[in-house]
Amino acid sequence: MESPIKYELHASDESARMGRLLTPHGAITTPAFMPVGTRATVKAMAPDELWGMGYRLVLSNAYHLALRPGADLVADFGGVASFMGFKGAILTDSGGFQAMSLAKINSISEEGIRFRSHIDGSPLMLTPESAVDIQQKLGSDMMMALDECTPYLADHARAKASLEMTARWAERCLAARTSETQALFGIVQGGVYPDLRRMSASQITSLGFDGFATGGLSVGEPRDVMREMAELSISMLPMDRPRYLMGVGTPEDLLAAVAMGYDMFDCVLPTRNARNGGAFTSQGKLSIKRAAYQRDERPLDERCDCRICTTHSRAYLRHLYISGEILAARALTEHNLYFYGHLMREAQAAIASRTYRSFARHTLDLLGSSAGDGTDV
Amino acid sequence: MESPIKYELHASDESARMGRLLTPHGAITTPAFMPVGTRATVKAMAPDELWGMGYRLVLSNAYHLALRPGADLVADFGGVASFMGFKGAILTDSGGFQAMSLAKINSISEEGIRFRSHIDGSPLMLTPESAVDIQQKLGSDMMMALDECTPYLADHARAKASLEMTARWAERCLAARTSETQALFGIVQGGVYPDLRRMSASQITSLGFDGFATGGLSVGEPRDVMREMAELSISMLPMDRPRYLMGVGTPEDLLAAVAMGYDMFDCVLPTRNARNGGAFTSQGKLSIKRAAYQRDERPLDERCDCRICTTHSRAYLRHLYISGEILAARALTEHNLYFYGHLMREAQAAIASRTYRSFARHTLDLLGSSAGDGTDV
Repeated sequence: MESPIKYELHASDESARMGRLLTPHGAITTPAFMPVGTRATVKAMAPDELWGMGYRLVLSNAYHLALRPGADLVADFGGVASFMGFKGAILTDSGGFQAMSLAKINSISEEGIRFRSHIDGSPLMLTPESAVDIQQKLGSDMMMALDECTPYLADHARAKASLEMTARWAERCLAARTSETQALFGIVQGGVYPDLRRMSASQITSLGFDGFATGGLSVGEPRDVMREMAELSISMLPMDRPRYLMGVGTPEDLLAAVAMGYDMFDCVLPTRNARNGGAFTSQGKLSIKRAAYQRDERPLDERCDCRICTTHSRAYLRHLYISGEILAARALTEHNLYFYGHLMREAQAAIASRTYRSFARHTLDLLGSSAGDGTDV
Repeated sequence: MESPIKYELHASDESARMGRLLTPHGAITTPAFMPVGTRATVKAMAPDELWGMGYRLVLSNAYHLALRPGADLVADFGGVASFMGFKGAILTDSGGFQAMSLAKINSISEEGIRFRSHIDGSPLMLTPESAVDIQQKLGSDMMMALDECTPYLADHARAKASLEMTARWAERCLAARTSETQALFGIVQGGVYPDLRRMSASQITSLGFDGFATGGLSVGEPRDVMREMAELSISMLPMDRPRYLMGVGTPEDLLAAVAMGYDMFDCVLPTRNARNGGAFTSQGKLSIKRAAYQRDERPLDERCDCRICTTHSRAYLRHLYISGEILAARALTEHNLYFYGHLMREAQAAIASRTYRSFARHTLDLLGSSAGDGTDV
């Protein structure tokens, strides 16, 4: 069958690349950051605001939506994008990571993941087949194969057994797919072991996936190990498919991963940190709760032209946060997502003009400058 | 001194009237509902969204802002409207009602209201003079005189003593005012006693206020008593000044009060109920949490053309509410405020075309029809 998605390469600069990902629900310019919309909503944001900021692709979550409101209900409403009122495309994760991390009791076997709902404790089973079935009902443009996210501290033997089961699950996912309009991505695992990363990439890329992801990173390992594994993994991925680095990350990590050639990213940092008062700025992070901002007339980021930075002072945003006002979460989320989207657009332009290396160096210098308050937000 | 505000009568229909209230920060078409922006934010809404829905006047709260972030800080940021990024006008209440109802310990004397902050317990005193001083710092276009909101169950002697003190406080407020760009409103009290309402109105309207309000209603008395007192009070208010019915109310009460000739209203119902899952619709209230809406594809209100009703199904909004998502509060607040704003625009048009009575009857019939779920939201 012909792939429901297509990657078009438009420009490259060393390993970094800029292109377009064509999906059944529109084109996405890459490299692209995907806002996380776990429960068919990017927390605190309206779908037309995401669109207005340039986002054309949102990540949603098979585990959460299967439990509530249920995949069949979402299917009846035309899939996640239609249900939430988003005009763009949707990528769903398989739910495996949540079934392993959020669920109260779980056991993992060849068959799949047995767990209890974190909502009502009911016993459930997630298999490669049901993960695909759920995502087909959710109507996402891009589905993820069920994998086992190998823990950072797994030893070599455990990591090897894990990636081999992930490869068998990958084949079962492909066999289970019936939709001709939804792409399916395979996921490279292998923990922090270079030989296992190569083995997993070799296995996964030999199967007929529409796109490929590097998984099992940003789970506690040191940053340099993460980057080493990400670079090793992508070196094994085919150039004619979209390449997605899962769960990464900070602005600094995104700049590094774009340099490696990754096309797609997701991370809860811009949205979750916002709700805790954390703002990403061109000059580093800041925590709006700090007393230093009580009378600060400046916007969150003096180099930002988003709606928040052109309307509100730090003093007002701090007042909202300290007062527990919903607008604080809204405003910081909107700014942070604008910041991430802007960073990606700048990266695209730098690749197109073959100036990515100097762009990244300049941006990193600014991010590390002293104007941010250095708070770990 | 010339009044900083001016009421222009444009049309009338029996006692109902339609006009424009000219303020230093723009004109407001009346009758007008004021969204409640207690802490310099209408909860869950961005200021440009209020503007986009047609709101040109927001109510804010001297008590809350004086405690946090402080009136001096707000003054340094150019007043409440500038601090919150709202392009329209602001009316502030005096803070008396909150000092009496929210504060942990309070005593009321001729001097003023002694209370402890509900935030940190610090002892504070609110006098007629300090209430004006605070509101002048807050830079509102319309300030309210400090009054004692007479409890519904006060006996005649207590209500009489209360309104007489309110009249003495009113004179002190006028004497304390120094701003020439901020209007000051007097408030009629008198509890549920017709003779006392007349006495209070006579006293208050003999003073040089820029506008007048009827206070002390919607504090627990039966609806017909509220309406009787509102009607009696307004009959004593001068026609050439704006007339404001404080703390009212439901769509039905607004329709009745517009018929009496009131120009301005405020109420927490559309915003507070929204955060509890309550929606106002043309066919009555509904509670989005009800299981009946789990698969309901209809918008909140099939006769509404707001952003929420043209984007989201009841099923999706219920999912958001049940999941505790911020977007639920946002969406219901936006819809409810749109509904209230739309109701006021329809009332204005009906007065202008001298069809207010039939408009109100038709609207009340629809509000009482069976399509709402009858939930007391």
